[in-house]
Amino acid sequence: MPKLEKVNLAEKLARFSAHYQPKIVGELNGQLVKLVKFKGDFTWHHHEHEDELFYVVKGSFVMKLRDGDITIREGEFFIVPRGVEHCPSAAEEVHVMLFEPASTLNTGNVTNALTQPVLERL
Amino acid sequence: MPKLEKVNLAEKLARFSAHYQPKIVGELNGQLVKLVKFKGDFTWHHHEHEDELFYVVKGSFVMKLRDGDITIREGEFFIVPRGVEHCPSAAEEVHVMLFEPASTLNTGNVTNALTQPVLERL
Repeated sequence: MPKLEKVNLAEKLARFSAHYQPKIVGELNGQLVKLVKFKGDFTWHHHEHEDELFYVVKGSFVMKLRDGDITIREGEFFIVPRGVEHCPSAAEEVHVMLFEPASTLNTGNVTNALTQPVLERL
Repeated sequence: MPKLEKVNLAEKLARFSAHYQPKIVGELNGQLVKLVKFKGDFTWHHHEHEDELFYVVKGSFVMKLRDGDITIREGEFFIVPRGVEHCPSAAEEVHVMLFEPASTLNTGNVTNALTQPVLERL
């Protein structure tokens, strides 16, 4: 039986500062809830088998897509369907909650210095 | 290919007022993202095969559990593991984002006047 504890996003977010290093804060139905802070450009990539939800907790960012950019602001979410190339980019630091399958690698089909194969649980 | 559109929670929440009638606002990996407003007690129930995430967008509510109550406030989430009996209760109206499998029925193992077998998509 998992612990029956609530999660306070602000409390979890106060516990790390590194950019583009998602932390696991919840798990359900084979999916993970993650928190991530980032600023600057990520890397163009896609996920072959996973859809990925980005919900902005604080700030805003641009989801670059091959068909155009979409700005996601606080209180908004965006779902990147599997197979769709995307590149998150933030002019200022943004705090994001992610929902995605446990199998999802942050850089998808790409492996580079940003790849985080093992994520910390907070 | 699904539409590549972001979802603004406040805009979706402004489109309905009925309590305990979740609306579908997103879908990914066989899971649904829903928004619900409620006030008062729901009904005691559990979900046999589904874990259920409650994230408070506005206000607060009490998740009644057989082992005690947990108050979930704005910016906090709580995951109800499958099999765990629970009963949401709110003294004042609360706005909640749900994340759960597409198969999840709102009243779980119980069928009563609160049961919503078909949900509207916003």
